[in-house]
Amino acid sequence: MSIFEKLESGVQSYARSFPVEFDKAEGARLITRNGDSYIDFLAGAGSLNYGHNHPALKDALIDYIQSGGITHGLDMHTRAKAEFLRALDETILSPRDMTYKVQFTGPTGTNAVEAALKLARKVTGRQNVICFTNGFHGVTQGALAATGNTHHRGAAGVTLSGVTRMPYDGYLGDGLNTTEYLDRVLGDNSSGVDHPAAVLVEVIQGEGGLNAASMDWLQSLEQVCRKHDILLIVDDIQAGCGRSGTFFSFEPAGISPDIICLSKSLSGMGLPFAILLAKPEYDGWKPGEHNGTFRGNNHAFITAAAALREFWSDDTFIKEVRAKIALVTQRLGDIAVDYGNGRISTRGRGMMQGLVFENGDMAAKVCRLAFENGLVIETSGPDDEVVKCLCPLTISREDLTAGLDTLEAAVATIFPKTTILAAE
Amino acid sequence: MSIFEKLESGVQSYARSFPVEFDKAEGARLITRNGDSYIDFLAGAGSLNYGHNHPALKDALIDYIQSGGITHGLDMHTRAKAEFLRALDETILSPRDMTYKVQFTGPTGTNAVEAALKLARKVTGRQNVICFTNGFHGVTQGALAATGNTHHRGAAGVTLSGVTRMPYDGYLGDGLNTTEYLDRVLGDNSSGVDHPAAVLVEVIQGEGGLNAASMDWLQSLEQVCRKHDILLIVDDIQAGCGRSGTFFSFEPAGISPDIICLSKSLSGMGLPFAILLAKPEYDGWKPGEHNGTFRGNNHAFITAAAALREFWSDDTFIKEVRAKIALVTQRLGDIAVDYGNGRISTRGRGMMQGLVFENGDMAAKVCRLAFENGLVIETSGPDDEVVKCLCPLTISREDLTAGLDTLEAAVATIFPKTTILAAE
Amino acid sequence: MSIFEKLESGVQSYARSFPVEFDKAEGARLITRNGDSYIDFLAGAGSLNYGHNHPALKDALIDYIQSGGITHGLDMHTRAKAEFLRALDETILSPRDMTYKVQFTGPTGTNAVEAALKLARKVTGRQNVICFTNGFHGVTQGALAATGNTHHRGAAGVTLSGVTRMPYDGYLGDGLNTTEYLDRVLGDNSSGVDHPAAVLVEVIQGEGGLNAASMDWLQSLEQVCRKHDILLIVDDIQAGCGRSGTFFSFEPAGISPDIICLSKSLSGMGLPFAILLAKPEYDGWKPGEHNGTFRGNNHAFITAAAALREFWSDDTFIKEVRAKIALVTQRLGDIAVDYGNGRISTRGRGMMQGLVFENGDMAAKVCRLAFENGLVIETSGPDDEVVKCLCPLTISREDLTAGLDTLEAAVATIFPKTTILAAE
Amino acid sequence: MSIFEKLESGVQSYARSFPVEFDKAEGARLITRNGDSYIDFLAGAGSLNYGHNHPALKDALIDYIQSGGITHGLDMHTRAKAEFLRALDETILSPRDMTYKVQFTGPTGTNAVEAALKLARKVTGRQNVICFTNGFHGVTQGALAATGNTHHRGAAGVTLSGVTRMPYDGYLGDGLNTTEYLDRVLGDNSSGVDHPAAVLVEVIQGEGGLNAASMDWLQSLEQVCRKHDILLIVDDIQAGCGRSGTFFSFEPAGISPDIICLSKSLSGMGLPFAILLAKPEYDGWKPGEHNGTFRGNNHAFITAAAALREFWSDDTFIKEVRAKIALVTQRLGDIAVDYGNGRISTRGRGMMQGLVFENGDMAAKVCRLAFENGLVIETSGPDDEVVKCLCPLTISREDLTAGLDTLEAAVATIFPKTTILAAE
Repeated sequence: MSIFEKLESGVQSYARSFPVEFDKAEGARLITRNGDSYIDFLAGAGSLNYGHNHPALKDALIDYIQSGGITHGLDMHTRAKAEFLRALDETILSPRDMTYKVQFTGPTGTNAVEAALKLARKVTGRQNVICFTNGFHGVTQGALAATGNTHHRGAAGVTLSGVTRMPYDGYLGDGLNTTEYLDRVLGDNSSGVDHPAAVLVEVIQGEGGLNAASMDWLQSLEQVCRKHDILLIVDDIQAGCGRSGTFFSFEPAGISPDIICLSKSLSGMGLPFAILLAKPEYDGWKPGEHNGTFRGNNHAFITAAAALREFWSDDTFIKEVRAKIALVTQRLGDIAVDYGNGRISTRGRGMMQGLVFENGDMAAKVCRLAFENGLVIETSGPDDEVVKCLCPLTISREDLTAGLDTLEAAVATIFPKTTILAAE
Repeated sequence: MSIFEKLESGVQSYARSFPVEFDKAEGARLITRNGDSYIDFLAGAGSLNYGHNHPALKDALIDYIQSGGITHGLDMHTRAKAEFLRALDETILSPRDMTYKVQFTGPTGTNAVEAALKLARKVTGRQNVICFTNGFHGVTQGALAATGNTHHRGAAGVTLSGVTRMPYDGYLGDGLNTTEYLDRVLGDNSSGVDHPAAVLVEVIQGEGGLNAASMDWLQSLEQVCRKHDILLIVDDIQAGCGRSGTFFSFEPAGISPDIICLSKSLSGMGLPFAILLAKPEYDGWKPGEHNGTFRGNNHAFITAAAALREFWSDDTFIKEVRAKIALVTQRLGDIAVDYGNGRISTRGRGMMQGLVFENGDMAAKVCRLAFENGLVIETSGPDDEVVKCLCPLTISREDLTAGLDTLEAAVATIFPKTTILAAE
Repeated sequence: MSIFEKLESGVQSYARSFPVEFDKAEGARLITRNGDSYIDFLAGAGSLNYGHNHPALKDALIDYIQSGGITHGLDMHTRAKAEFLRALDETILSPRDMTYKVQFTGPTGTNAVEAALKLARKVTGRQNVICFTNGFHGVTQGALAATGNTHHRGAAGVTLSGVTRMPYDGYLGDGLNTTEYLDRVLGDNSSGVDHPAAVLVEVIQGEGGLNAASMDWLQSLEQVCRKHDILLIVDDIQAGCGRSGTFFSFEPAGISPDIICLSKSLSGMGLPFAILLAKPEYDGWKPGEHNGTFRGNNHAFITAAAALREFWSDDTFIKEVRAKIALVTQRLGDIAVDYGNGRISTRGRGMMQGLVFENGDMAAKVCRLAFENGLVIETSGPDDEVVKCLCPLTISREDLTAGLDTLEAAVATIFPKTTILAAE
Repeated sequence: MSIFEKLESGVQSYARSFPVEFDKAEGARLITRNGDSYIDFLAGAGSLNYGHNHPALKDALIDYIQSGGITHGLDMHTRAKAEFLRALDETILSPRDMTYKVQFTGPTGTNAVEAALKLARKVTGRQNVICFTNGFHGVTQGALAATGNTHHRGAAGVTLSGVTRMPYDGYLGDGLNTTEYLDRVLGDNSSGVDHPAAVLVEVIQGEGGLNAASMDWLQSLEQVCRKHDILLIVDDIQAGCGRSGTFFSFEPAGISPDIICLSKSLSGMGLPFAILLAKPEYDGWKPGEHNGTFRGNNHAFITAAAALREFWSDDTFIKEVRAKIALVTQRLGDIAVDYGNGRISTRGRGMMQGLVFENGDMAAKVCRLAFENGLVIETSGPDDEVVKCLCPLTISREDLTAGLDTLEAAVATIFPKTTILAAE
């Protein structure tokens, strides 16, 4: 019996899909204790946009540790925190004319979402928050109320409240812009939807099945928020840090969220780290009202600062990412056309795209076959029916192609070559 | 204007008490960018029981990073995780005949508390949880409901529910064992206290003002839980990992909690890390029901394993800790007697002791003076009226004495030498 | 200063609209202490379908009291209760082949709604209930959560939870059957809408502005409930007892609700009375679980039995009602066409129809003018923009015509005769 | 099969204890269809303080109905309402120098409690309300949260929140005044008890087992409310209207509640009726915020006014009541001493006294035997262990003695004559 069998809780999930013991990792590669190498299209569920152990980050971290740099700093001012704040300001905020305060909320995404919800409720004095179908925001109680997934909600053990669910972009079909429904209930004195503190939205719903909001819809959503005096919170935890093709996923829409949640790839190297960006007029906390022991993870400050300097000082990196997006888009589109006679489709945007199957069993089978052939890839969506390509943005052309080849081969094993012409 | 003034949220708290910029840290010492050295009696609010950057941990971490060890592993099996589990089993669980499953809940204390509450509610099918006056368990919504502090509760923005508050040991005076009141309401069909899933308790209330439950009271509490078929959850996040004088704070009581929350000093080096220990019969999760991006912080696995091996393989370390506890007890007792004519008292247990002043202003003044003289120390309690000595357990005799001298000097500056005999 | 000014709470509302002191009442007429007579198009907000003090009911009640019949019977079996149950069985349930258990829930509509919600949650073990935009179900906490009106919700003083709001028939425009949206979220594992115990719906939304669900929509709603194993609760408190043109408002749809709430006109004479009808398989109460001091209002049993016998033993009464419905429909339609150049419309069904104005001020002005000319009539709707004709079903042709004339005159005072042809 | 068996819900409770069909009632007598006469020591669970169908009330009601008086008046001003308000003012409020506004909340006790909770929360802007162990306040959701009884709470189907439970007078033994505990948590910044809007208390807990608060305790409770700026709400629904020996049960304590709930015996004849009395400074409703179809039950206005004039114009009635209280006290005390060798005790105050048995089975057996011998009497308490004498205050000396004799005989059948001297 392995130590995992002996001691680890039955709550494990990824460990069931990938029943090996990993040891080392580099770039887009995961290596097991036996030396087997896997291409990683999961990338820490979006936490490893710059790949595993990128040399620039790793070296900065080793230097910092060796120099005796403070590791744990609560919320005290440290040199490492200053370096992070300066890097964030110089590479991200200032170039975009974004004026925000930075809150270190505790180092997990759900900490950031909880802090965002608390802050929005506190500064508005209202309790309700608008969330969307298929949204995922974390599993602590406040964030879980905003999360749509039944599997996760069912584990709450209490009634989840404080949230009104609205249909996401496209949920009611093409004919209806769902922000119009939101606008209507907010303007209707007997709609039963209490005037909310905020709208909490993902621009691309990573866990919800790679649904991507259109830029038009986001603009309408912002207008509805402004009209009804509601804060707009973007949860950019999975879609942010370049994954969509811009640093923030909402940039192409030209909107200006009041609060932004960042985590996952923010530390660059996969270290626990999360922040809120809040417009100064909404930074209404009293000292220490929201706290947390690990909100000063100085190792993460160091790697995050290094990552921002390395990848966001100019547009070299993001241009490369866009080229890879084009490749992924092309290849996934081809697979969907070439196999299954129309039973496979694509979904998503940027480096958050995937293949949509008719059910979770098919998607699971594809992933299983891919893993057997050296590719780590996972599903998402309400029925786990979407195979999600979340590869590192830094992945080499060779690994990207190899991974997509493996994925195609898995699809090809299960589905016949498409014989019906698309035009029919 | 510093980068902190420019960008950091007003939520900062410790940064206000200690308005310097720290850079390096070693053992019980914090060093600023200017090279000023402070003795650290805060120790990451209990996260640095082994001091800052202990060489054994630091070296293990650097080796791991240099070897290309995986950093971020979601909940996948990794060599680092196996090493942690083995170390935990061999140094802590097996020697104490403790049979528990280990859940990686997300790397912050509040993640662990949220997971504990969810699990207890899920496996019992009940919603209510008994918590205590002056308890502190975190600030995400589920944990915040269990937390007593008005300042933190006030930032929730929603009604906190699902919890029944009970008086902690001693809250109703010496004459009344408060577990008898709990027993009564649980056995009373119209008490209005819904049959709870669990009792959530700290053995020593770190943030609540260093109230320490007696071993008798803990035993009674366990009996009440058994009698009414309720899970007993010990939040050992701050009092655990040796701080009380044993690894778990509840060991002297001989009780057997159903679920134990650990975090803070568990990683040893201050890296974000938290786990639940749950008796196998209560490990009732479905796969992935509680998840979180950073529940596989492999750096923390490495340092935690190193810390367990270094300090808990035999009783050398804990014996030294107990000697320091004796010293702290003696010195704090003397200060309370020697100054203020009886207006100062002591509270707490183990390396969680402090001086109780009449109000928060006095306590703040003591901390301010201490900081001016090179000691980082903070307050706790309902009115921040308790000056809390949370020094590293590894602190040298010299630093410990120097820190206590500084503390005494601060007290002496504010309070007169006691002139009234205690016997009067 | 009147005794009302001296002592009565500022919560009064109708008393503000009709600032006179009423004394007697008969049929469709209210008579003040000064002897002024008003035609009553409010009818106790739908509680006086058979008019004020109908002789058959009044005589039965006087006889009962004079005979020494028990007045207050808790939930004990009494002759009066038996008479009511027999009358209900013989005139309503048996002729419609309806097999239901009758619960005396406490004598107000909100008691019945609270009981319905509790029962549905209890027997399904689920907490969520689907309610609709613009619904009104009462103002005690459970019912208020289901009510849409902001004015009433705002007085709760607590967060109202346990309910998911859905768009009522027509709320999203003609193109979208809103039950399809409901069906979709119920079948979507990450919609965020927890599997509900029940759907709670009014067939005609009296307070919400006279929105009437189509029979198609009701049938679809029932199908969605069956498909997802959800109880269908019809709140027929205002639309029931004949007001829609059938005893139950849902009869034309041929649906079979699992639970039906009745109150208002059920006692016939305006005495407090409410019941639940629940299919036997859902009558899952333990003895006394839902109780209430006045659930055995024997006076109401007597008048309710008399009303059922008088009006529902054959179809004479309801045929007359339908003729009046035709008249009301015609006259309101004409007013909407004849005045205001298209700015007035009609809404509702049966004897729950009204005129829709552009805002609440216009509607209030119409009511004020009508009252000055001897007509008691009130508004409803999210902005109080709907003037609601809720006259007694027993109203004489003369009074009905006179009341509609007064209403038309009020409209004519404010709005010009329509000059633009409808065809334009 | 009777019509009750055929149609009535299984929720019935009293009907199970008294399996006969009642028809008429007069004074303290209930008469079945068969002509059997029972002495009524239940009195509509405290709703019939003046007995069944008192001639003065009955005649006034018949006159009113015969005269064509309005029956249902929503909240409109009517002659009957004016008469009630004047009678209340002249017989109750003015003689006691009480300045309150009167709200017609809907005609059931739970409506009044819901309104009180809403009003207190609304005017203070706080959500929490302090309630007590063994309290009973109704079964609609808001009132049910305040109710202690597990049987009733269990039927809620949702988590009941918004309330903090405190120990009632005597709950923690004689040594501890439980208001001191309340005072402590309210003054403790980390007690976890959120600053409440109000305290809701019964002076004698009718359903909770006849626990009677001492006047000292009530005075302390009022002081704690004043000190912490909290509204004091007395639920005088069962103990009010003379049952305790004064009109309001709290009069001997000299306290001045901010809000008082009245119902049950207020209408005098058992008609559904309830009001709030609120100090003018707390009558903060907007028009219509709390409403309800039957808040203008004019029949109840008439009988309530008649009852106030008949019984409360001078002190004749209440003096007679006090004499009966003395008799009840004596007889119950004797029974407790004379039977069961100390296993029976007495509890309660005024005409709300009873015998406490060791368990519910014994109490049920006593009631069953009493019923067989012509006495209607019921249990209360957490385990239904208290046999409660709630006879009409107007009961004749003969019926009172006869009822007590029957009760004693029932006890004597089950328990042996006491043989052990009390002094031992």
